[in-house]
Amino acid sequence: MRIGGTAWRTIWPDSDGQCVHVIDQTLLPFRFETRRLATLTDTARAISTMIVRGAPLIGATAAYGVALAMRDNASDAELTRSIAELGATRPTAVNLRWALERMRAALLTVPPAGRHARAMAEAAAICDEDVALCSAIGDHGLAIIRDLATRKGGGRVNILTHCNAGWLATVDWGTALAPIYKAHDAGIAVHVWVDETRPRNQGAFLTAFELGAHGVPHTVIVDNAGGHLMQHGEVDMVIVGTDRTTATGDVANKIGTYLKALAAHDNGVPFYVALPSPTIDWSIEDGLRDIPIEERSSREVTHVTGAAEHGAIATIAVVAPGSKAANPAFDVTPARLVTGLITERGVAPASRAGLLQLFPERDIRAA
Amino acid sequence: MRIGGTAWRTIWPDSDGQCVHVIDQTLLPFRFETRRLATLTDTARAISTMIVRGAPLIGATAAYGVALAMRDNASDAELTRSIAELGATRPTAVNLRWALERMRAALLTVPPAGRHARAMAEAAAICDEDVALCSAIGDHGLAIIRDLATRKGGGRVNILTHCNAGWLATVDWGTALAPIYKAHDAGIAVHVWVDETRPRNQGAFLTAFELGAHGVPHTVIVDNAGGHLMQHGEVDMVIVGTDRTTATGDVANKIGTYLKALAAHDNGVPFYVALPSPTIDWSIEDGLRDIPIEERSSREVTHVTGAAEHGAIATIAVVAPGSKAANPAFDVTPARLVTGLITERGVAPASRAGLLQLFPERDIRAA
Repeated sequence: MRIGGTAWRTIWPDSDGQCVHVIDQTLLPFRFETRRLATLTDTARAISTMIVRGAPLIGATAAYGVALAMRDNASDAELTRSIAELGATRPTAVNLRWALERMRAALLTVPPAGRHARAMAEAAAICDEDVALCSAIGDHGLAIIRDLATRKGGGRVNILTHCNAGWLATVDWGTALAPIYKAHDAGIAVHVWVDETRPRNQGAFLTAFELGAHGVPHTVIVDNAGGHLMQHGEVDMVIVGTDRTTATGDVANKIGTYLKALAAHDNGVPFYVALPSPTIDWSIEDGLRDIPIEERSSREVTHVTGAAEHGAIATIAVVAPGSKAANPAFDVTPARLVTGLITERGVAPASRAGLLQLFPERDIRAA
Repeated sequence: MRIGGTAWRTIWPDSDGQCVHVIDQTLLPFRFETRRLATLTDTARAISTMIVRGAPLIGATAAYGVALAMRDNASDAELTRSIAELGATRPTAVNLRWALERMRAALLTVPPAGRHARAMAEAAAICDEDVALCSAIGDHGLAIIRDLATRKGGGRVNILTHCNAGWLATVDWGTALAPIYKAHDAGIAVHVWVDETRPRNQGAFLTAFELGAHGVPHTVIVDNAGGHLMQHGEVDMVIVGTDRTTATGDVANKIGTYLKALAAHDNGVPFYVALPSPTIDWSIEDGLRDIPIEERSSREVTHVTGAAEHGAIATIAVVAPGSKAANPAFDVTPARLVTGLITERGVAPASRAGLLQLFPERDIRAA
């Protein structure tokens, strides 16, 4: 997507093939800086310190980490060691492990002399495939937005989103935001209500930044406001991302998503979830029962980081001293509240039957 | 209620009858200081700068403001002038105007020499009546909590609240928190989930402070978390306050209340609204259509104030630079989502019939 008119990805190799560059997302939205990652250690640190975040981008960065390790030492031992080091950076990231195993499989059969070049090519392929997947999600979601715009007689389509499922979390396009970028680029008038997304403010920080940088009209709201806007006809659709989807279409996403789904349902507003099919967990039936919800540090609730005067980054306490806080990081939105799942293969009803129509190879009865 | 074991009200006259004291709520929860208000100007400034806030407390403070004016100059002209000056401090506060008109009616027939004493007595009566009203709300709500505790076999009753409808907003007890204080004081095990209540954080600041000071167990959560907690059986009931209730039981309260009501309904959690009957607007039928929602400054969304290191109060930006923000301050919860209205006369179903059973004098058909 664009920043100030220039096209960017979140990660790209240097023209000399000897290092890789990323956007430092820990500084967003208050400072925009890129980081040059020249070694395995650089990439591992970029992942663990959240210079890069978002499952697809973490996977892509790790793939380049293996490639940089192979430049310095292309032995089997170093391949094993680099994959272990990168795999330990974010223990629960599924994409990370997937990308590392793909690199291992691609490189083990290649003689050491060819491994660096092969690894750079494989990492680039992982990036390009992620871009293609997100772009396909965008195309399918675009059709929904286009239909809404037609029904509104070309009037502005107001879309509410929660958290950040944009290009900053992927290599490009994003998931939930991909349809919005496609619509905006196609000349459809869209406006995005951006939930600030407490406690980590990914909406107010990252989603607002990337929409603003690309030129998409948007307005930040507190997480409390979406229901009121829907009651008054100010929201035409909701699109969110997801961390994990069950085989029956239940969706785990950032805490608060469920509340917006309830409000959308109560007001007849379509509620869509955009997801790459690898986030579907075909082994799980009941999201509420079977998806464990991470309880994160209470400090994320009790303290807020932002820009003080003169641009310095500062952290302040925003809870009464002595009061404790709880911080469940995700919630589960039951399939009954989801209008449709926007995947790279098309839009499915949020149900087992709906998903199997798009992914028939997953139908064990058919096997 | 208690702070560190000592009983407090939010406003009280000095023993010499020459001034009045209040808690400076602009400094809470990070500093606890009281302010001595010695003149009409002091009281007007305390209201306009929000040293005192909450409709009942604003009314009580204004009443004392008139009394202090009468001490210095008990003429009819000064009575008129002081009421005008105090009435202009918070233009939309209904309680403020009610308290001032009551003071005018009480004083106009009294000779100037007796006005100061009469005014101090009338202001004290306004305070005592507010305390009695909130205490009655507390008693009626206590019965609901006691019933829940019995059904749980004496297990802890978990109550979620939004914003601050506690004693800091009134003279004592509060509205939504009054039943909780009564239950806690009666030895019932209660625990309160405190929504932080963005954008102004009245939950994390004021509700958490007053519950902590009184010794009521509580946990602060982001506004996004309540639905998830209800899905997992962690909330036994919700109690909130209200700024305005329609004759049919629709409830306008702090933005985000509607989302919690939806989640309570979806999970079979009882959702109660505590209100003094003067906040019922008998002239209004449809809350969504007829209650105008104040749009407040976007700076409340884009900036957050809290405690920096070493205790200094600091304000930081928490939205991407250049992004705009919207800030609707209230939303309307339809009566269909409200289990009951807890008033000073008892608990009514949220409907015209329910309210008229408690307030038969309002039944125009019966008149």
